[in-house]
Amino acid sequence: MAGRDPEIRKDTVTNRWVVFSPARARRPSDFKSKDSANPNHTQSECPFCSGHEHECAPEIFRFPPDSTVDWKIRVIQNLYPALSRDVQLNPSSDGMVLTGFGFHDVVIESPVHAVHLSDLSPSEVAEVLLAYKKRIHQLSFHQSVKYIQVFKNHGASAGASMSHSHSQIMALPIVPPTVSSRLDCMKGYFEETGKCSVCEMSVKDLLIDESTHYISIIPFAATFPFEIWIVPRDHSPHFHEIDSEKAVDLGGLLKLMLQKMSLQLNSPPFNFMIHTSPLQVTDSLLSYTHWFLQIVPQLTGIGGFELGTGCYINPVFPEDAAKVLREVNLPK
Amino acid sequence: MAGRDPEIRKDTVTNRWVVFSPARARRPSDFKSKDSANPNHTQSECPFCSGHEHECAPEIFRFPPDSTVDWKIRVIQNLYPALSRDVQLNPSSDGMVLTGFGFHDVVIESPVHAVHLSDLSPSEVAEVLLAYKKRIHQLSFHQSVKYIQVFKNHGASAGASMSHSHSQIMALPIVPPTVSSRLDCMKGYFEETGKCSVCEMSVKDLLIDESTHYISIIPFAATFPFEIWIVPRDHSPHFHEIDSEKAVDLGGLLKLMLQKMSLQLNSPPFNFMIHTSPLQVTDSLLSYTHWFLQIVPQLTGIGGFELGTGCYINPVFPEDAAKVLREVNLPK
Repeated sequence: MAGRDPEIRKDTVTNRWVVFSPARARRPSDFKSKDSANPNHTQSECPFCSGHEHECAPEIFRFPPDSTVDWKIRVIQNLYPALSRDVQLNPSSDGMVLTGFGFHDVVIESPVHAVHLSDLSPSEVAEVLLAYKKRIHQLSFHQSVKYIQVFKNHGASAGASMSHSHSQIMALPIVPPTVSSRLDCMKGYFEETGKCSVCEMSVKDLLIDESTHYISIIPFAATFPFEIWIVPRDHSPHFHEIDSEKAVDLGGLLKLMLQKMSLQLNSPPFNFMIHTSPLQVTDSLLSYTHWFLQIVPQLTGIGGFELGTGCYINPVFPEDAAKVLREVNLPK
Repeated sequence: MAGRDPEIRKDTVTNRWVVFSPARARRPSDFKSKDSANPNHTQSECPFCSGHEHECAPEIFRFPPDSTVDWKIRVIQNLYPALSRDVQLNPSSDGMVLTGFGFHDVVIESPVHAVHLSDLSPSEVAEVLLAYKKRIHQLSFHQSVKYIQVFKNHGASAGASMSHSHSQIMALPIVPPTVSSRLDCMKGYFEETGKCSVCEMSVKDLLIDESTHYISIIPFAATFPFEIWIVPRDHSPHFHEIDSEKAVDLGGLLKLMLQKMSLQLNSPPFNFMIHTSPLQVTDSLLSYTHWFLQIVPQLTGIGGFELGTGCYINPVFPEDAAKVLREVNLPK
């Protein structure tokens, strides 16, 4: 990569500018996490483990529904919720303050402490995805819920306070800024071209892998090095439209991406986020929004430049990151 | 704070929603950095130290101008610049890709490795601020430079790769997204009220300290716990309009804020950013933009919720953080 000049790219989906600056990096294939997130597996005091259910906040549902200690997935309330389901949504007269109404739930992905999401089979990952779907469906009946964010923090430096594999679901009384920007950007593209900008994404040398219903890519203007998007091939505004067959297909590709990332980048701490559409939508919005799942390994920190400008510096060109991940060979 | 309900606030300057969720926190006065950023002072191989000037990228200027080894401040090129001063700015036909033109400079704040910015006297801090001003003035003559970001990273986890006290100046060929959002938001306020939203900020119980020309506050919708803003009392769009007298006054208040933050929060890693206006401005823009300096101690990480939504969860209410910092007594 020596001598390649920096480049500034704008993403057609997120509307974000990113500075690609390979001079600051090692070779793309040498990128590793210094700080492996695979946690200590000898934990006896974990409330998410089977047998410790009484130490958790109330359960919402479990899978299988009629299981006892042999449950596979539990969806529970967060013991320390950032938003409260018990307050009335009550905006101030100037609209600048809302009471903190919302839901904050946890999806325990396995009863066993040492099992990571990527250790599950594709159909077991699908069960986790279908648990998200079921909970989103339940939350969507609350008129005050405007947007539902599903996310996973893996590793302490990625924000996980518990090492037992879990993800989180937050139901918000507002459409958050990242979502508004994305929708504005996609609307602009649609008004110009009559097309959905995600459907139209040119993937060429950005493709990592593909399955029947999904592709995995490094986006053209990836904010973070080795950031991965898993995108439905067919136009689909909401994640929670997923069916069981697609969930198994997505489960397989998500598992593969987590395995490749872990092997290539030394088990980095990571986040994934499902970027879907607001619950209340117009017909026209449905024609230009398209959900995707974003995986972000934590390899570089955020400094004053990023905090100040909202621009990010990515030391790895997306086409180089895609090539590296495409060529990872998983052990049989 | 027990029992206080969460609250969602929107900032009138940054247009950002923040969730205040005290249930997730210790008492505001118990907040400490786990990870003190005061670096190892026994460094013999630091290129920023006096006597190692030849190990650095080219110098732009020094202060005093005619000093030799007894310089106080050096402004140099970054050895690993994120943007290159040597490429031609050349946008692609669709405007989505720019060549990485720009400047990336470093301000070495002291010749002595163990000296932090907050160890300097108010008039020495002023010399650093006036070095920013001088370099901004030089860079403003390049027609392709649209915005200049001054920032400081202190501590490895705040993005500092060198422990020797320094700050950075990046000149960008675009107006970055944080700046555009801020200007849009302040323009909206101006169109509604005929006033600058920073001039009009209600500080009441958010005030920490004040000097002749500046106030220091916790903003009403602070994104991060114990985030501090230093704001000029009088309407002023550009940081680089500062004069020597105001620089000494600001130097004193900046030093005081860094000292209080360090004492109260256990010397946390931190960033500060100068939020100023774009270089090319209209008369109407000048009436509603107002520069300020933002200090962000690194106390909480960023997880999937923040990455996904662009909303932040702040466990400390701004009025509580202001009270804690107001009451810090520095040793005489």
